[in-house]
Amino acid sequence: MSNIPAASIGENWKNIDTPALVVDLDNLEHNLTTMADYAKQQNVRLRPHSKSHKCPAIAHQQIALGAVGVCCQKVSEAEVMVNHGILDVLVSNQVVGRTKLDRLAALALQAKVMVCVDDLSNIQEMNEAAKSFNATINVLVEVNVGSGRCGVLPQEPVLALAEAIMLCENLNFSGLQAYHGVAQHIRSYEGRRRAILQATHQVEQTINLLSMHDIECDVVGGGGTGTYIFEATSGIYNELQVGSYVFMDHDYALNLDDQGQQINDFKQSLFIKTSVLSKPEVDRCVLDAGLKAYSTDSGLPVVYNIENAEVLGAADEHTNIRFDSSLPVPRLGDSVTLLPSHCDPTVNLHDWLIGIRSSQVQAIWPIAARGALL
Amino acid sequence: MSNIPAASIGENWKNIDTPALVVDLDNLEHNLTTMADYAKQQNVRLRPHSKSHKCPAIAHQQIALGAVGVCCQKVSEAEVMVNHGILDVLVSNQVVGRTKLDRLAALALQAKVMVCVDDLSNIQEMNEAAKSFNATINVLVEVNVGSGRCGVLPQEPVLALAEAIMLCENLNFSGLQAYHGVAQHIRSYEGRRRAILQATHQVEQTINLLSMHDIECDVVGGGGTGTYIFEATSGIYNELQVGSYVFMDHDYALNLDDQGQQINDFKQSLFIKTSVLSKPEVDRCVLDAGLKAYSTDSGLPVVYNIENAEVLGAADEHTNIRFDSSLPVPRLGDSVTLLPSHCDPTVNLHDWLIGIRSSQVQAIWPIAARGALL
Repeated sequence: MSNIPAASIGENWKNIDTPALVVDLDNLEHNLTTMADYAKQQNVRLRPHSKSHKCPAIAHQQIALGAVGVCCQKVSEAEVMVNHGILDVLVSNQVVGRTKLDRLAALALQAKVMVCVDDLSNIQEMNEAAKSFNATINVLVEVNVGSGRCGVLPQEPVLALAEAIMLCENLNFSGLQAYHGVAQHIRSYEGRRRAILQATHQVEQTINLLSMHDIECDVVGGGGTGTYIFEATSGIYNELQVGSYVFMDHDYALNLDDQGQQINDFKQSLFIKTSVLSKPEVDRCVLDAGLKAYSTDSGLPVVYNIENAEVLGAADEHTNIRFDSSLPVPRLGDSVTLLPSHCDPTVNLHDWLIGIRSSQVQAIWPIAARGALL
Repeated sequence: MSNIPAASIGENWKNIDTPALVVDLDNLEHNLTTMADYAKQQNVRLRPHSKSHKCPAIAHQQIALGAVGVCCQKVSEAEVMVNHGILDVLVSNQVVGRTKLDRLAALALQAKVMVCVDDLSNIQEMNEAAKSFNATINVLVEVNVGSGRCGVLPQEPVLALAEAIMLCENLNFSGLQAYHGVAQHIRSYEGRRRAILQATHQVEQTINLLSMHDIECDVVGGGGTGTYIFEATSGIYNELQVGSYVFMDHDYALNLDDQGQQINDFKQSLFIKTSVLSKPEVDRCVLDAGLKAYSTDSGLPVVYNIENAEVLGAADEHTNIRFDSSLPVPRLGDSVTLLPSHCDPTVNLHDWLIGIRSSQVQAIWPIAARGALL
């Protein structure tokens, strides 16, 4: 059931078979270092999200640069990270049902495990699971700070759950999860700033209420690649859970900075290498990659480094592209590089991440948590 | 790098962990039998497309019911099928570049292998690869019959390539590939009928031209789940390459029959079992499956068997749903079943297909060609 990688170590970029998921190692390292340095400078902890890369090799680089651990979105994803030596994981999501809670509790015997909750019955079931393994699970209450997905409302509902957690022998109340997903993709700087300002205000009120009840928050977590500056400088959030900054994607790159320019704090490091499979017209090419090589939930991919190339459509295994016939049009078999619109679900389609530097293949990393759905 | 299945044989449906890709075995078998019987009745060969299921267990059932072989869309997908004992495969796509052509040629030593071409230089390179393995590759010329993707135009351009193939010692001209992808999703019966009528006319003219040059077509292939009736009864096409009929999906189910009703020749057999992960409002639930458990290229998934449920949005690992509060709303941990909008890229996200009958898990099939991109 395993697929062969599209390259060998030492090969030239042009010999990588296609389609292949390729990471530019210089750009990746730039991104990893930039975020790690920024977190240190702002005196906030960094716990990058591994759901973006699903790749223990990258998680270990993040830890080496100072990250306190990683976030995962699924218990099975956390298992992969722990099994690969990442010994501090936050499942930044609810875990519901005894089957998964047992897996989480067992994992807490091997590593420091945190998880989010937003429901009283879930807390009780989690405590039973932890008890049956004689394990301790660290728990964050998820606060809905404006994204309208999971989480309870700020203040009293958080207090009620925090108090419930503190009554559980095998659970440890660790703080708050206050991620604002929707804010990440607000295009304007001011719009993102205002959204996180509002979230911060709600979190602060909640912390104050908890404090009045002698409940302290070790972790106040949130922040994504679109807003991390605002959480880091809020004076309230103390842990950043950024994910996409490692790769960036075309959608994030459309966010604007405070000068109204496209943001450029991180570099695009993730690419899909494809080849021209068919050239039915002089200016139209069909590539050998489609919906099974990149996700389209945030739009079609964009052609890299070729001007005026119009992506006409994507099918399961094809991308149809119209090129500007006044420029050189790729020939049959030529390589065409695509920028994915959304990196996380794109990475999840691949088994291998090919790392290149100066056009040479220098790393072939298994995307070990690909397809970790449970 | 392998994920654990979400169920065990014999378990009840309600105990399958989530998210899970589930197939209703009765409906699957109904679909397999219906298509096989229809092809026999119309005296056309059936070569189902394995890109839909990527599952050798289903391919073997199709063969047992009379299919002559399977289609694959990638060489690596064909390798998986051959390695699992399917010994007649058509790569219904172009294969470009010596690396993949060598893999194709080597495969032709183990099984009967066919492939599509639409370019002269590709034919020459394919012959060299076949020669180096002392193999014979069977070749179809792909004709663009209206979809505007790959393929050459009908008549003379096909003749030119057919003649070139016949000059190649290690290639065998086998006929035409004339699949009309766009026609599959035309909603009206009459619209689909007209599109295939036009395609058939172009194919017929091409066959006549080839015949005038003493070139016969063993295979005249095409047809998809949306149009197979028209190809099967055309008197011209002799091989159906249908894929989605095994599972159906929400998009195909929106096609209309000749009475203007939603088509119902095949039954929906593919489902995503999910659970309620969070219930932040009395009528709003967040499910534990998102963009990594289903594709959204053909729209958001649809909630199965619960009236007036509105899918508000999909994130990487979440689906946000508003339920009709005048009806019973699922509780935390309850199972909610989704119908994927597009089965092929959805199946490609999963490692296991859980087969159920009468609410019992009776099969756990590896989706062995998942992620076969090369």
